[in-house]
Amino acid sequence: MRILGIDPGSAVTGYGFVEQQGSALRHIAHGVFRLDRKLPPAARLAELQRLLLDVLQHHEPGAAAVEQSFVRPGNPHSALALAQARGVALATLAGAGLPVGEPTPQQVKRAVTGSGAAKKPQVQQMVKRLLSLDQAPVADASDALAVAICHAHQSQGGLARLPIAPRRRPSSRARAGQRWVVRRAR
Amino acid sequence: MRILGIDPGSAVTGYGFVEQQGSALRHIAHGVFRLDRKLPPAARLAELQRLLLDVLQHHEPGAAAVEQSFVRPGNPHSALALAQARGVALATLAGAGLPVGEPTPQQVKRAVTGSGAAKKPQVQQMVKRLLSLDQAPVADASDALAVAICHAHQSQGGLARLPIAPRRRPSSRARAGQRWVVRRAR
Repeated sequence: MRILGIDPGSAVTGYGFVEQQGSALRHIAHGVFRLDRKLPPAARLAELQRLLLDVLQHHEPGAAAVEQSFVRPGNPHSALALAQARGVALATLAGAGLPVGEPTPQQVKRAVTGSGAAKKPQVQQMVKRLLSLDQAPVADASDALAVAICHAHQSQGGLARLPIAPRRRPSSRARAGQRWVVRRAR
Repeated sequence: MRILGIDPGSAVTGYGFVEQQGSALRHIAHGVFRLDRKLPPAARLAELQRLLLDVLQHHEPGAAAVEQSFVRPGNPHSALALAQARGVALATLAGAGLPVGEPTPQQVKRAVTGSGAAKKPQVQQMVKRLLSLDQAPVADASDALAVAICHAHQSQGGLARLPIAPRRRPSSRARAGQRWVVRRAR
């Protein structure tokens, strides 16, 4: 099962593909769509849709997830621009016939770091580690991969059934059922 | 030149087509897309895109306009849902190769009633009158037709060059250059 994670943005949208093989996760691809800020909003959103359809066609996922967004006090304009991009991503993925998950940012952070309040560098490092990458992807692509990892965990009913560091012997705490051992064990 | 106006919503989206023939506006079609609230958000947005593509194919407009939205204090969740639908409309129209205008609600109201603070029933009545309809369309479709009318006016550089009641002899105030005579003259 190949999963596409999306971290939507009005200017930069991250994407990441992971593949679930039994109880392990394999990295397939990641990247960012950087949209031309000089384009009118409608043309920019159409470009986002075109780019998304391109990677869908190329990597053929079986499921997708798009991170939820919030209105942060103070900048409603950028929140709306983000929501517009998010709407395009949701419509494009569902229109392509994919089931689309919508994890919250907290769920995504918790899925890869064990903490819903983790900072971006921490997410980047954990994505690198969990997917055995040589280097951490840029923040937007790391976030997108984290969204895909989170979705894989949610689909499996939680990490308890999906070891995220299969090459390490679980610690005693992990064997006792504690879920987020990778970070704590090191 | 045929113009599509869109009044986007997360549950109900109004659409309206008008045709600019010289200095007159002709009503072509209008309606609403009512999306199934029981569908997941992504599926609902994909359905909105499908319905939009249907009417685009059927009526073949040469330009489009989508009303801008605002974050109203108190309900950020519904503002985000609306922005997502709006993003889908913008991407679909621009993706179909149409230039897309984005008038504000105030500009739309002013274009049909002369006042940026007009209420919905007033917009409905003016749309009915300006397009010589037998009855006023439901609010969402009236708003969409108003968006199309507004876009026609903006494309023409204002109402001064586009009489909105061509079958009536302009009043003396209109001839003197006053712009919003139809409502005031009756």
